[in-house]
Order: sequence, then C-alpha cells, then structure tokens
Amino acid sequence: MKKTQLSVGILGLGIVGTGVVKILTEKHRELASKLGLPIVVKRVADIDVRRKRALKLPRNVFVKNAETVIDDPSIDIVIELIGGIHPAKEYILRSLRNGKHVVTANKALLASEGSDIFKAAHKNKVVIGFEASVGGGIPIIKIIREALIGNRIKALYGIINGTSNYILTKMTEAGIDFSTALKEAQTLGYAEADPTLDVNGTDAAHKLAILATLSFHIPVSYKKIYTEGITRITPLDIAFASEFGYTIKLLAIAKQLNTDIELRVHPTMLPKEYLISHVNGVFNAVYVEGDAIGPALYYGRGAGDMPTGSAVISDIADIARSIKGGANTLFRGNRIQRKTNLTLQKIEDIQGSYYFRFSVLDRPGVLSKISGILGDYNISIKSVIQKERHKEKVVPLVMMTHKAREKDIISAVKNIKKLTVVHGNPVYIRVEGGKE
Amino acid sequence: MKKTQLSVGILGLGIVGTGVVKILTEKHRELASKLGLPIVVKRVADIDVRRKRALKLPRNVFVKNAETVIDDPSIDIVIELIGGIHPAKEYILRSLRNGKHVVTANKALLASEGSDIFKAAHKNKVVIGFEASVGGGIPIIKIIREALIGNRIKALYGIINGTSNYILTKMTEAGIDFSTALKEAQTLGYAEADPTLDVNGTDAAHKLAILATLSFHIPVSYKKIYTEGITRITPLDIAFASEFGYTIKLLAIAKQLNTDIELRVHPTMLPKEYLISHVNGVFNAVYVEGDAIGPALYYGRGAGDMPTGSAVISDIADIARSIKGGANTLFRGNRIQRKTNLTLQKIEDIQGSYYFRFSVLDRPGVLSKISGILGDYNISIKSVIQKERHKEKVVPLVMMTHKAREKDIISAVKNIKKLTVVHGNPVYIRVEGGKE
Repeated sequence: MKKTQLSVGILGLGIVGTGVVKILTEKHRELASKLGLPIVVKRVADIDVRRKRALKLPRNVFVKNAETVIDDPSIDIVIELIGGIHPAKEYILRSLRNGKHVVTANKALLASEGSDIFKAAHKNKVVIGFEASVGGGIPIIKIIREALIGNRIKALYGIINGTSNYILTKMTEAGIDFSTALKEAQTLGYAEADPTLDVNGTDAAHKLAILATLSFHIPVSYKKIYTEGITRITPLDIAFASEFGYTIKLLAIAKQLNTDIELRVHPTMLPKEYLISHVNGVFNAVYVEGDAIGPALYYGRGAGDMPTGSAVISDIADIARSIKGGANTLFRGNRIQRKTNLTLQKIEDIQGSYYFRFSVLDRPGVLSKISGILGDYNISIKSVIQKERHKEKVVPLVMMTHKAREKDIISAVKNIKKLTVVHGNPVYIRVEGGKE
Repeated sequence: MKKTQLSVGILGLGIVGTGVVKILTEKHRELASKLGLPIVVKRVADIDVRRKRALKLPRNVFVKNAETVIDDPSIDIVIELIGGIHPAKEYILRSLRNGKHVVTANKALLASEGSDIFKAAHKNKVVIGFEASVGGGIPIIKIIREALIGNRIKALYGIINGTSNYILTKMTEAGIDFSTALKEAQTLGYAEADPTLDVNGTDAAHKLAILATLSFHIPVSYKKIYTEGITRITPLDIAFASEFGYTIKLLAIAKQLNTDIELRVHPTMLPKEYLISHVNGVFNAVYVEGDAIGPALYYGRGAGDMPTGSAVISDIADIARSIKGGANTLFRGNRIQRKTNLTLQKIEDIQGSYYFRFSVLDRPGVLSKISGILGDYNISIKSVIQKERHKEKVVPLVMMTHKAREKDIISAVKNIKKLTVVHGNPVYIRVEGGKE
C-alpha cells in the first residue's frame, strides 16, 4: 500500500529534537515537494512538556510516555533523541519490533550495543538511520556507505569531538592552559557541565566505533578502542609542536594494513600543512583515504540543533523515498562480517613517530644518556630542541623520533624516568604524517 | 520481477571507463555482497578496441557500435562516458527511451542540454545519475540532493577545475608565470593539449550550472554564467594578494540573497585563513553554506580514472538498491521549478570588495587623482600598497576597496584608464570574504 503521508514520532525534545521539529514544520511544503509525500510530526514524547511552546505543533502532539509513540500504529518512523543506553535501547528495539523505521543520534548506544540493534532492524526488515550519530553536519555515514561503496577504506582520521577541538584551538591560539580553555568552552556552551566524556576521548571513541564498523564491515565496540583524552596537553607542548611544524589535535584514527586494523583516539601531532590541521574551533572533519578516490576530507559543524537536525532529516528523507517507492530498498544491511580475518592491533604494536618532552637537569651528558636509552630500544632521534640554558636547573628537553614501535617507546620511557637527571613523567605524543 | 543480476553497458572506454571497469571487476564479489546482487559488465562500446587488453573482461563484451549497447534488452544501466554534446545526447535519450537507467560524467552536456535529459528520464521513469559530472571524488551531487535535503543552500563556493587550481598553486608556490605553470601541468598530464575550456573557466561554469540547478531547483544553462578564466593572473598580483593576506583561486560562486541568484566563475581573492584557501594542486573542494548545517566543506580529487570511476559506481549502486527493492525509489525528480521568482543577477549588479593594480608613473598626486575618481563612484579604499619608488618610472599602485558595486568599478576603471599617468589596462580581481 502506498502511503500518502509519512508520520514521525519523536522521543526526546532536547536540542536536536527541537531542530528536527523546526525543519519539519518550517520546510514542510518544500520537503513534501522534494519527496513526493508530506512528513508529519504525529507525536512527540518528552518528560518536560514546557519546551513545546516555541514549536508550531498542535497541543495534542505532545505526550509524556515514549510507549504512546512507539506503539502508535499510525507512526512510520520513530526518532530516538533521548540518548544514553537505557531506556533508549529498549525503546528502539520495541520500535523495530513494531515494524517502525528508527532514526537515532545515539552514538553511545550504537558504539556499545550496535550489534543488537542492527540485528533487530535486519530481522524486522526496517531501516535504522544514524547519520546524526557522528559529525552532526557532516554526512559521513552516507558518504562511507553510499558514495564510497566502490572503495576499500585504507585510513580514516577524524576530528570528531567539537569540545576537545575548541579547547585545543583556544590553547593553541591564546597560549592558555587546559582548564582555562575548558572554562571558556563551558561559558560558551561548547562544553557540558560535566565534560568528562568529551575531554577524555570517550565520545570520539563512540563515533570512531561507528565509523570503523561501517568502514571495515566488522563489529566494533568502543571499549576495544585505545582512548586517551586531551587533559594532559599543555601550552608548552603545543608551542614545541609548533616549532617542529606541527599542530596538536584530538584525532580518531582507523587504519587498515593487510589484515591489521588500528583503532585509536588520542592527541596527535599533525603537520601544519595538512588541510585537517586547519580545522579549528568546534568544527569537525573526517579525512578518508579510499583506494579508488584517494584522499578526501569532509568538514562541518559537529553538533548543534540545526546541523544535527539536518542529519536526522536526511535519514527521514531516505526512508520517505523508500516508502514512497513501495519497497524497502534502503535497508543496506549494515553487512557486518562476524567471521573476519581482520584483527585489531594492540596499542603496543603500533608504529609511528613520537614527540618527547623530558624535564631534565641542565647538565652535560644528559642528552647522551637519554639518547643512549632510546638507541637501546631502536628509537632514533630526528630532531632535538634544547633551548634554555640554566645550569643545574630543570629545563625541557624536546625531541622528535623517527618511526618506532609503541612498545619500545613505553620501555624506553620507563628506563629514562629512572635517570636521576630526569624529573617527573616524560611526556610523549604520537605523530601522524610528515616526512620520515 | 526481481532481478538476480544487474547488467551495465558502457559507452566509451577512456580514462573513466577503464576506472569503472576496474572497480566493477576487481570488487565484483564485494559489491555483490554489499548490494545483494551482482553487477555485470555486459557490453562495452568503444571505437578503439585495443584498449580492452588490460581489463579482465571476456572478448565478446567489446563492441564498436553504441547502439549495440543501447538497444540490448538485457542491459539495465547505460554508462555514458564518451563526453561532448553529440552523439552523447542522442545516445542518452535513446537509452532513456529504451527504459534504461543512465549514468553519465558528461558535465558539458548536462550544463547545456540538461533540461531535455532530465525531462526524458522523468517521462520514462528511469534514473539519470551524474555524480561523476562534478568534482570526481567528491560526492557533491549526493550531498546536495540527499544529505542537505533539509537545507536551503545560501551560498556555494567551489574550486572545481583541477587544472586551474594546479596552475594557480604552482604560480603561487614557485612565483612562475601562467604559461610556465601551464606547460608544467601539461607535462604532468594535469592539463590537456588544448587547455582552453579549463583555463578560461568554461569547465568550472559547466559544473556550477549543474550544482546551481540542484541547489536552487531552477534550470541553469552554463551560458548564462559570468565566466572569467585565469589566463590574465600574474605572479605579481599573486604576490600582492599575499601581502594583503589573500590567496587567488578560480572560484565557482553561487549565492542566493532573497530572490536574487548570483552565479559566476572568476579568479577570486580569498583570505588565507579560510580552509578553502588551503586547497592546492589538482584537488577540488566545494564549500557549502546551508541554513541548517551552516558552513561545510567537501574536499577530494576532481578527476582521474579511479576517483571519477568511484563516483560512477556510487550511482550504479544507488540504482542497484532501487532495482533490488523492486521499485523505482531513486527517481528524485530533479524537481526543477520552471516558474520561479528567482532572478539571475547581472555581473554589473554584484557587490563586493575589489583588488586593483594600476601601472602608474611614479609622480606626486597620482594616488589622489585615482582615489578621486574612485570616490566619484562611491568606491572607498581600504588599503594601499605603493612600495617601489622610481621617480617618473612606471610602478605598480595596488589597493583593496571596501564593498562596491561592479558597475561602479567598471566605470571608474574606464575613467582611470584615461589618465595620462596610468599605463596599460588596470587590473582588478574580485574578493570574497575577509573583514569589511
């Protein structure tokens, strides 16, 4: 039976939900004309019904119970925007079982319980759309699944946490420290009151898990991703990085090398001349290297009511086209190979260049001692900065290495730390790109 | 009837055609698994059958006549890669009439005869895919039509001619002149033996016509687009631009302001801090500003066998999904409003900042004479560079203006040119962005 309209029900009327309703109401005629059938907001469930006021929706649309939406037989698509694992998961599964398509922005859920949800969508022959879960205004899900379908993804590098990128940008531009930049971000609404999941890299790991699942067709839980946040980055390291020609970004990295997959989130030094190094403030960007398209970069806002709302609308539109055609052509299967020859590399086994900063006593022979230990672990030094001269005072000794193995870096650091001339914990930052 | 395989026929086995065949053969199993049905290259028509050797296709696939492909009832999709207006147009129309979906990379054809082709696709209820027509590796067509469906496009700026971008990049980096950079581009295969359509902006205008049609839902012929190439750009102007903090790019510009549409292709000065200013070499990028997503940028290779081949595959995959679902859900109508309240602005009516370079006799009072004339036309000067001092010799006088109307710029230039102290033709370059 061909539908004459498409009814959506929304769970959660927060920032994104409000954006979705705004677009659906303000562009109602435009979307109907483009899609060939009107999209109607049938029900909106939210605990706090006061928020409804600014929206041009009939009063009877608003309900308090999610079940009223999920079990409404007239609703075609359930849009889950409440976030978190429970009860979001139960709501989504129940919607899928009710034969409804689901659109969600819930990265935390997909990154941990994605397999269950994709399986349920598959079983019930409905679509689960999640464009809004990664990179708000960047259509990276659609790009990887549809536009790059003829490509093997060789590597993917993402700046996919706006809060961290804003903080690092501010630290770089103003030379301020992490906590000052964080406070500024909170004042401007770019960081939450509890910014933990953003600044410790978890949010980026959630998104990377989703992107890796799509890129490599294997199930990835974010818990398996090596994750390191930006809390220990100092203006001093940013300044030294800059002297070496690098900028520091919180990068989500996915690489495939033969049957090895590398997945990690950590502060990363990138050559300043890279396009992605110029992605500043709250903006997000994903750099993808496909075997056919070569290098590509997609840039846009990572969050916000309208950018993320726009991503939800894109999923709704895809479903609308599918429903209008009278067939479920959109189910792309999220084809995940459970048996795979791909193995996730341990962080100890990755190889790359490293930046080091040691706090050392300014005394003859220190460099020789440290470089001796590095040499013992096959780590060779590419360049050194040892600027300040304060005899017998603690000064920074900074260096960049050639390609080395993380395992060796860890062992060398452990030994270097034991030297009496070395104070505190040595700092090391992984480097991507640049000349060997 | 559900298909068990999808048969494609290719017209033209040049660079892109070879890329398409490579992907379809090398990734045959992968694509079949992702799409749920195998894609088979059934026929390839090319005048030069020698090219077939490198490809893993049975001998009987190759034919000399396009009609053998177009009229083969077993073929579902015709891929037109011969380029040019005739006979490509006739081939495409005949394919559409035969009920076949068509995928094309033919920007010149779509930019001039697009209306006829879209109409024929609509009438025959088949899809015309043209992702490969703009920006090779950048899925800009899919992004505008699908991902940004909830957005009104406010502005679009594209570096969409790789040859021009390569030449300008080389001129900027090495300080060489246009013809030297062009020769280098030709040696490297980045410019054709006859580079006219690339360096005079026509190719970019073709692509802009397609992007504008999609963005504003109005029919646009490239002939109506104001177009200026890069042949008159000098290393001197690039150097002065740099001093003012700008870089020069061949930009395709589309803007909507109320009911006015601006479409133009010309060398443009852009603030160096813009992300798009860092798009160098043969790479392409499209910056889009949507009312919901805000600013976004998409970057990738603009040409080449594999990037453009990948775009063709993306269109084929979309059609495959549609066919597999048993319905034609992909026909997006290219909904073009023939009656529109939008009007294309004349170049004389655009407003913006300008860069000027006058060749003047180094003599007291010259600046006052020139700025006097500019003032008569309501053009106010923002900054001036007058570096060299060679009394009574011809020296460059360089300036940037505040916002002015092109009409006034043209009139002022005409009058300034008449001054005896001014030698040759004044140079002016349009500026986008930067502070007023």
